[in-house]
Amino acid sequence: LSAQYESLDYEISENKLYRDSENKPTHQNSLWVQSRNRWVACFFIGVITALVAAFVDIMVHLSKEWKFNVILKYMLSKCNVEQRGTASGCMWETMITWILYNCTLVSVAASLVIFVSPIAGGSGIPQIKCYLNGIAVPQVVRLKTLLAKAIGVACAVSGGLAAGKEGPMIHSGAVVGAGVSQGRSRSLGIDFGFFKAFRNDRERRDFVSAGAAAGVAAAFGAPIGGVLFSLEEGASFWNQNLTWRMFFTAMISSFTVSSILSWFNGRSGWLSWTGLANFGVFENKDYNIWEIPIFLLIGVFGGITGALFNYLNVKISCFRKKYVSTKFSRFFECLLVAAVSAFLGFVTIFLVDDCQPVGVNPNTTQVNQMWCKKGEYSAVASLFFQNPEESVKSLFHSPMNSFRATTLVIFAVEYFLLTLWTFGIAVPSGVFIPALLTGAAWGRLFGIFVEQLFPSVTGIDPGKYALAGAAAQLGGIVRMTISLTAIIMEATKNITFGLPIMLVLMITKWVGDIFNEGLYDTHIDLAEVPILGWNPPKMSRNILAEKVMRSDVVALELRERVSRIVEILRATAHHGFPIVDRIEESPTQSLPDYGKLKGVILRSQLMKLLENRILENDRGSIYGPVDLAELQGDDQDLTVEQLRLSQEEKACWLNLEPFMHPHPHRVPLNTSLPFIFRLFRGLGLRYLFVVNDDNKLRGVITRKDVARFR
Amino acid sequence: LSAQYESLDYEISENKLYRDSENKPTHQNSLWVQSRNRWVACFFIGVITALVAAFVDIMVHLSKEWKFNVILKYMLSKCNVEQRGTASGCMWETMITWILYNCTLVSVAASLVIFVSPIAGGSGIPQIKCYLNGIAVPQVVRLKTLLAKAIGVACAVSGGLAAGKEGPMIHSGAVVGAGVSQGRSRSLGIDFGFFKAFRNDRERRDFVSAGAAAGVAAAFGAPIGGVLFSLEEGASFWNQNLTWRMFFTAMISSFTVSSILSWFNGRSGWLSWTGLANFGVFENKDYNIWEIPIFLLIGVFGGITGALFNYLNVKISCFRKKYVSTKFSRFFECLLVAAVSAFLGFVTIFLVDDCQPVGVNPNTTQVNQMWCKKGEYSAVASLFFQNPEESVKSLFHSPMNSFRATTLVIFAVEYFLLTLWTFGIAVPSGVFIPALLTGAAWGRLFGIFVEQLFPSVTGIDPGKYALAGAAAQLGGIVRMTISLTAIIMEATKNITFGLPIMLVLMITKWVGDIFNEGLYDTHIDLAEVPILGWNPPKMSRNILAEKVMRSDVVALELRERVSRIVEILRATAHHGFPIVDRIEESPTQSLPDYGKLKGVILRSQLMKLLENRILENDRGSIYGPVDLAELQGDDQDLTVEQLRLSQEEKACWLNLEPFMHPHPHRVPLNTSLPFIFRLFRGLGLRYLFVVNDDNKLRGVITRKDVARFR
Ligand SMILES: Nc1ncnc2c1ncn2[C@@H]1O[C@H](COP(=O)(O)OP(=O)(O)OP(=O)(O)O)[C@@H](O)[C@H]1O
Ligand SMILES: Nc1ncnc2c1ncn2[C@@H]1O[C@H](COP(=O)(O)OP(=O)(O)OP(=O)(O)O)[C@@H](O)[C@H]1O
Ligand SMILES: [Mg+2]
Ligand SMILES: [Mg+2]
Repeated sequence: LSAQYESLDYEISENKLYRDSENKPTHQNSLWVQSRNRWVACFFIGVITALVAAFVDIMVHLSKEWKFNVILKYMLSKCNVEQRGTASGCMWETMITWILYNCTLVSVAASLVIFVSPIAGGSGIPQIKCYLNGIAVPQVVRLKTLLAKAIGVACAVSGGLAAGKEGPMIHSGAVVGAGVSQGRSRSLGIDFGFFKAFRNDRERRDFVSAGAAAGVAAAFGAPIGGVLFSLEEGASFWNQNLTWRMFFTAMISSFTVSSILSWFNGRSGWLSWTGLANFGVFENKDYNIWEIPIFLLIGVFGGITGALFNYLNVKISCFRKKYVSTKFSRFFECLLVAAVSAFLGFVTIFLVDDCQPVGVNPNTTQVNQMWCKKGEYSAVASLFFQNPEESVKSLFHSPMNSFRATTLVIFAVEYFLLTLWTFGIAVPSGVFIPALLTGAAWGRLFGIFVEQLFPSVTGIDPGKYALAGAAAQLGGIVRMTISLTAIIMEATKNITFGLPIMLVLMITKWVGDIFNEGLYDTHIDLAEVPILGWNPPKMSRNILAEKVMRSDVVALELRERVSRIVEILRATAHHGFPIVDRIEESPTQSLPDYGKLKGVILRSQLMKLLENRILENDRGSIYGPVDLAELQGDDQDLTVEQLRLSQEEKACWLNLEPFMHPHPHRVPLNTSLPFIFRLFRGLGLRYLFVVNDDNKLRGVITRKDVARFR
Repeated sequence: LSAQYESLDYEISENKLYRDSENKPTHQNSLWVQSRNRWVACFFIGVITALVAAFVDIMVHLSKEWKFNVILKYMLSKCNVEQRGTASGCMWETMITWILYNCTLVSVAASLVIFVSPIAGGSGIPQIKCYLNGIAVPQVVRLKTLLAKAIGVACAVSGGLAAGKEGPMIHSGAVVGAGVSQGRSRSLGIDFGFFKAFRNDRERRDFVSAGAAAGVAAAFGAPIGGVLFSLEEGASFWNQNLTWRMFFTAMISSFTVSSILSWFNGRSGWLSWTGLANFGVFENKDYNIWEIPIFLLIGVFGGITGALFNYLNVKISCFRKKYVSTKFSRFFECLLVAAVSAFLGFVTIFLVDDCQPVGVNPNTTQVNQMWCKKGEYSAVASLFFQNPEESVKSLFHSPMNSFRATTLVIFAVEYFLLTLWTFGIAVPSGVFIPALLTGAAWGRLFGIFVEQLFPSVTGIDPGKYALAGAAAQLGGIVRMTISLTAIIMEATKNITFGLPIMLVLMITKWVGDIFNEGLYDTHIDLAEVPILGWNPPKMSRNILAEKVMRSDVVALELRERVSRIVEILRATAHHGFPIVDRIEESPTQSLPDYGKLKGVILRSQLMKLLENRILENDRGSIYGPVDLAELQGDDQDLTVEQLRLSQEEKACWLNLEPFMHPHPHRVPLNTSLPFIFRLFRGLGLRYLFVVNDDNKLRGVITRKDVARFR
C-alpha cells in the first residue's frame, strides 16, 4: 500500500479544551450558528456546483454549434455541392480541419492535466470514493484541480473524445464542497475567514459528500441518485441530518442548473430542463412480462462486456504506466486519441452506407448529408458527430428503422474500443456517457433482433432495449447498484422502466462480479490506496490484533521534553502518537515497556502547540488560555524546521494532558480482525490502540494495517 | 423507559466455537450457501409480501364494488327514482344499511386487534422503526400479528374508516421478512427447518429491513422509496450488499404486485399497474419558477397543520389511555368511529350542494347521483365514498372546476378530524393515505385561489397544488424526508415534480420541527421505548461514563458453580453478564471488587449451556463437542425452573471460557457520553463495559442507560 495517502481524522479529539467549550455561555448559540451555517454552506455548494456544471455544458454546446455550423456546414456547402448530388466534395479537407480543431481543444485539456494538475485527469470518481471512504488523495479537493477539471473536461468533450462530462462534474462538486465549507482556497492563498468552525476533516468530509451529490444532481438532474451515489460510494454510516442536507444541496444544484439551462435555451422560468444529460422522454412506456427474459439477456451481455472492458482497461493502464510515462508522450497520446477518434468517425461514415431520408427521425437535430444523396442524411454521422448525449437520446427515441443493424454493430465496437483507450489518458474524462452510448447502440441492436424474431408482436420499441443496454453496459463497467438505478431513472425521467433497469443492473453486477471488480475499484487498487471495503476480509476470524498491529510504537509521555517531540516529529512520518503514563526502556528487549494508555495526540496538534509555543519551563506553566479552533487538525504543511525553535525552547516541556484525546479506542490483544474492521469501518477510525490485560500499550493499528488484509 | 422492550443482539459473539468453525473444511462452502440463501430468502420475502398486499388490495376492491353496486345503486334505484328527479328517495334507509355494513367490517377488524393481537393495531410503523433501531417490541414480528394485521386492515379500510392500508403493509412486510428468514413460525409452532443459519438477531434484523422495504414497494410501487424508508427509519449503517438485497426484495415485491394486479384488472402481463396506491399520471408536467413561493407557502401550511395533528393526536392518545382502557370500550370506540365516519359523509353530501354534470370529470369512476339532479353527480360523494386512493387520484387529476372551494374546505376539515380520531383506535390503520387525501383537498384549494389571484395565467392546474398539499400534509405529520420524496415521486410516477415536492417537504419539516416531533417518534416516546436518535444528546460532553454506567454489576467468573448461575438467572432480568477473572467481596464497600474484564456471555447462551448440560464436575470436563448453531442467541422463552437441574448438576461447574465473547467493547471511566453514544449507534451494541485504568470492571452500560439521556 502506498504511503502517500493520508487518512482523514473523522474522530473528534475530545480534549479538555473541547469539553470546556461546552461550558461557555455562548456555546448553545454557537451550536445553533453552526447548524445554520451548514445549510448556508450547502446552499452555496449547490449553487456553485451548478454554475460549474452549466458552464461546462454551455461551453460544450457552443463549441458543438461552432463545429457544425462553421466547419461542417460551411465548408461542405462551399465546395462543389452539385457534384454527384452529395456533399462529399471536399470531405477530406473538412476532415483535416475537423481533426485539427479537435486536437487543439484536446491539447488544451491535456496540458491542463499534465502541467497544471495531474490529479484532474480521468473521471475523479475513484479519488472521491477514496475521500469519502476516509482517505485524502493529495491535492484532490483543491481549487486548482477544479479549474483544470472544469476547463479540461469542456475541452475534452468538445474535442470529440469518447468521454463524458459527468464523472468530472462529480469531482468538481466535491471540490466545491470542500472549498466552500472551508471558506478559503489554498491554491489561491485566500482566506475568506468564514465557516471557521468547519475546518476539520469530519465536517469537510460531510461537505464533500454533499458536493458529490450535488455534482451528480447537476450532471444527470438526479438529486436522489446523487444522494444515493454519495452513500453507496462513500458513507460508512447513515445519518438523517447529513443525508437530508446532502439532498438539499443536490436539489439546489439541480434546480440551479435547470434555471440556467432553461434560460439559455430560451424558455426562461420553465424548469423542465434538468441536468446536463438530458435523455429525452419515453413516449411508449409499456412493457410486457415476456420481455423480462430479453432484459435478463441484455444484463448478462452487459456484465460480460463490462468485465471485458475493465480487464482490458487494466492491461492498458499497466502498459501506459510502463511505457507512456514522460510528459511528452502522455501529451502525444492525447493528441493521438483525439485524431484517431475523429478519423475513425469519418472513415466509418465513408465506409458504412446508412443513409436515411431526412424527416423520418424527429430526434436528430443535426442532420448531416455527408456522402449521402440529397434529401438524405447519414445515420452514422448522427451517431459519431453529435454530442454523445444527443446520440444517446436519438438511440433511445428514434423510430424503428432509423439505424441499420450494421451501423449499430460497427458503432458499438468502435466506440467501445475508443472509450477503452480514452479512459485513462491525461485529460479529464468520464466513462458514464460513453458507456451509455455503447450500451444503447448494442441494446438497440437487441431490439432489432427481437423485432425480427417476433414479427407478429406489433410495436416493439427498440428504444427501451437501448435503455436496457445502456444501463447494462454502464452497470457492467462501474458496478454501482441502487444509485445507478436511481440515476438512470431520474435522467430518463421515467419510473415505469425502473423495474427492468434494476433487473438488468442486478444481473449485470452478478455476472460482472464473477470476473473482476468494478472499474473504479480496480483503479483504486492499482493506485494502492488503503481503502476499506464493505465487509471484513473473509476467513479472518483467527487473525488477532497481535498480528495486525505494529508493536514498535512511537509513544509519548504525558509531559515531554520539547526536544524529544521535535526529534520524533522529524524522524517519523506518523500522524498520531499514543500517550502513556511512562515509557521504560527495557535492557533485555528491543522494544521499550510502555505504561498504561492515557490518550492520543495528533501530529497536527503537536505542531500547533509548538508553533504557538505553549510550553512549560522547569518552574511551571507559561501558557495562557488557548483557543480550541486554533488547535484543531487544520493541516498545514509545515515542517518542524520551519518552526524555528530555539535551544532554550527545546529544553522546555510540553504538557500534553490538556490537549490529548483522553479516551481513544482500544482493544485487547486477542481481538479478531473482523471486529477491528467493523470498528474502523463503522466509526471511521484513524488510530486504534492495542492494550494488554493491564491496559498497557502494546501496539498501534491504523487503517493501512487493516487494509493490508484482503 | 419501559422494561418490556429488549435490545437485539446485533453483535456477533466471537467465542471459541465461532472462531473454530472457520477451520472446518466445509466453512467456505457454508458461507457460499448462506450468501445464496440470503437471496433466496429475499426472493420469497418479496413474493409473499406482495401476495399479502395484493390480497388486501383485492379484498378492499371487492368490498367496495359490492358496497357500491349492491347497497348504493341497488337500494337507490329500487325506491322511487322518479321523485324529484333525484335518487334521494330512500336515502336514509340506504344510510342505515351502509353504516351497518361498515360497522360490521370494522367490528371484525377491532376484534382481531383487541382479542387476537393487540400489537396489530395502528400502523405498525413505530414498532418497525424500533425494531430496525435495535429494539424488539414483544410479538411484533409474529405470524399471528401478520394475520390480524392483513385481515384487519382490509376490513378497516373497506369499513370506510379514514385509514390507509399502506402503513400496515409495511408492518406486514417486516413480519414476512422475519418469518421467512427464520424458516419457522412460533405462532403456529411449525419449524420448516431451513435457513437455520439465519436464526440470530443480526440476520433477522437485516431481513426485517428488507421486508419493510418490500412492504413499501408493494404499497406504493416504490422500490427505491422502500429502500430509503428502511434506511431512514432504521439503518444505523449502510452496507452495500444489504442495501442491494433490500432493493432486490423491494423490486420483486413491486413486480409481483404489478403482475397480480394487472392480471386482476384484466391486462394480464402488462406491468403498468404498480403498487396499491395508484395515483394516476400527471399529464401537464410543467411548472414555472414563479410557482415556487406558492409551494413554499403550501409547505409552511403543511408543517403547521401537521404539527397540530401530532399535538392533538398525543392529547387524544393520552385521553384514550386513561379513559378508554377496557376491551369493551375500545371495541365500542371503533364502532363509533365507523358509524360517525359514514354518517358524516351522508350529512355532508346532504348539506353541501356540489352537483356536477356527469362526464365533465373523466377521473371519477363511481358516479353517484345522490341528492343531485338527473345527469349530475355529487362531487362530495365522490370524495367521501370512493376508496381514499381513488379520491386522491381524482383530486390530483380532475379538471379545474370539478370541485367547489366549499366542498374542499369542508372535506379537508372533516377528514382531518376523522383521521385524527381514527389513528390510534384498535384497528390496523395507516395514516399515509388519509393524510395525503386531506392535503390533496386543501392543496387543490390553494390551486383554486391561485387561479383566482392570477386569472391572466392560463392553465393553472390545481392538480399539482393538490400534489404539493398532499406531500406537505403527510410530511408535516410523519416528518420523513428523502424517503418520502422518493415514495411520492414513485407513487405518482413522476420525476418532474420531484423538485417542488422536495422543497415542500423540506419546508414542512423545518416548520413542523419547531413545534414537535413526527407522529411516529411521538408515539415511540409515549410507549417509552429506549430508542437511540441520530445524534448524541446535546450538551453532554461533560457527562462521563462513570455517570452513565450501572456500577452494581452482576458479573461471573471464568468458571462458575452452576448453582450460582441458576441463582443469578433467577434473581435478575439482565440479558448479558460480564466475565471477570475474579470477584472479591470487599468487606468495606457494598460493591464487590471485580477483576479484569475477560469477556461477556448472554443469558440465552447460559440457558443453552445449562439445557444441554455442558457441565464439568470437580474432576474435569464432561462435555463433548458442541454445535455452534445450538448456542446462538436463539431466544426461547424458557425459565430456569423449566430446565429441571438436579442437585448434583447444580453442584457442578460451568466453564464459560470457550463460550464467552472474549473481547467485548470497553471504555475507560472518563469516556464522554457522545463517544459512548456513537459506539452504540455506529456498531449496534447491546452491552458496553466500563473499566478502570487497570482494566478492572467498574460498570456496565446498556442501550437503556444511554437512551435515558435526551
Ligand atoms: N505512533 C506510531 N508509532 C509506531 N507506528 C505507527 C504509529 N502510527 C502509525 N504507525 C504505523 O505506521 C505505519 C504507517 O501507517 P500510516 O501511514 O497509516 O500512519 P500514519 O501516517 O500515522 O496515518 P495516516 O497516513 O493514515 O494518516 C502503519 O503500519 C502504522 O501502524
Ligand atoms: N449484568 C448486569 N449487571 C448489572 N446491571 C446490569 C447488567 N446488565 C444490565 N444491567 C443494567 O440493568 C438495567 C436494565 O437494563 P436492560 O434492560 O437494558 O438490560 P438487559 O435487560 O440486560 O438488556 P436488554 O433488555 O436491552 O436486552 C440497565 O441500567 C443496565 O445497566
Ligand atoms: Mg501515513
Ligand atoms: Mg431488559
